[in-house]
Amino acid sequence: MRWELLNSEIIYRCPIFALRRDLSRSPRGGAPWNFHVLESSDWVNVVPLTRDQQVVLVRQFRHGIRALTLEVPAGLVDPDDHSPAEAALRELREETGYEARDVAPLGAIHPNPAIMNNRCHMFVARNVELVGVPQWDGTEELVVETVALADVPQLILNGSISNALTVVAFHLLDLRGRGRAQALVPD
Amino acid sequence: MRWELLNSEIIYRCPIFALRRDLSRSPRGGAPWNFHVLESSDWVNVVPLTRDQQVVLVRQFRHGIRALTLEVPAGLVDPDDHSPAEAALRELREETGYEARDVAPLGAIHPNPAIMNNRCHMFVARNVELVGVPQWDGTEELVVETVALADVPQLILNGSISNALTVVAFHLLDLRGRGRAQALVPD
Repeated sequence: MRWELLNSEIIYRCPIFALRRDLSRSPRGGAPWNFHVLESSDWVNVVPLTRDQQVVLVRQFRHGIRALTLEVPAGLVDPDDHSPAEAALRELREETGYEARDVAPLGAIHPNPAIMNNRCHMFVARNVELVGVPQWDGTEELVVETVALADVPQLILNGSISNALTVVAFHLLDLRGRGRAQALVPD
Repeated sequence: MRWELLNSEIIYRCPIFALRRDLSRSPRGGAPWNFHVLESSDWVNVVPLTRDQQVVLVRQFRHGIRALTLEVPAGLVDPDDHSPAEAALRELREETGYEARDVAPLGAIHPNPAIMNNRCHMFVARNVELVGVPQWDGTEELVVETVALADVPQLILNGSISNALTVVAFHLLDLRGRGRAQALVPD
């Protein structure tokens, strides 16, 4: 089922992605087709949890939908980051002013395997603590909000949390925790 | 927190999206910045469930990551579709050969509110039945696979299902079903 790549060219570059056009041919033959792909470095999302099970979220203006969203801290893995985990800790500190001793991986997913080449690495940061003020870079303007982890499902169902990647982060946190819960309360 | 839009222009068009560049200025003032947005019609994802709780999935080559993925049926809402629900039923039939009497909405999310303007409408189609062969359009080449709904969490955790939107669809199905489950087995 793998298509043969005949040609690949970058059409446009902007700071957070490059638009690539691939000319590919089906293994079943026929005429080649153009496919468009956004090239980007990997992303990170981190669910920050305080000791009393509050989630630290950020509200910000998102230019894609030209509206405010409520999301977990997230960003690109920078060339200076030694690992996605380090990027997650950095984004947490920069966007919220909260810190954690470490993060635990929840898994990595493809934000959009049809038109994007990158992955998004998901983490949970437990026992986060407020240590200072946020340090925004570039165009970032964020409001930090904490909500009870127990209220997150309702915020997703009523559309208050609508970013697909934030929803995935909570789903993976849910699935990873379910093993422990099932040990106590089998289905 | 809403940025003022000073200028907006389409830089590039391809069949499934247009790349737009917006020049915007922060409400806090300062120099304007360019933001890049993919304009697309809305998408649909549908979780097809057979009467015996099997999920109908599609395996396909995805050009963004140049690898095979396992996903729920999905696609764009076409101009001919009267609603996202109709698009979901159409995609289900075209991609898998399965049909349902109707679909139930699970909610709509933003695939990427930072760089995309569209929403993805999520549905569940219950009691789907195989009625014919798939009717692929354009470059589609799919293999239909059924897995037990109970096995989906493991497929997500081990990376076999890695498309963020498919994961979101299962999360919303999970949350919508949880109300009933909690009535039986409180946390």
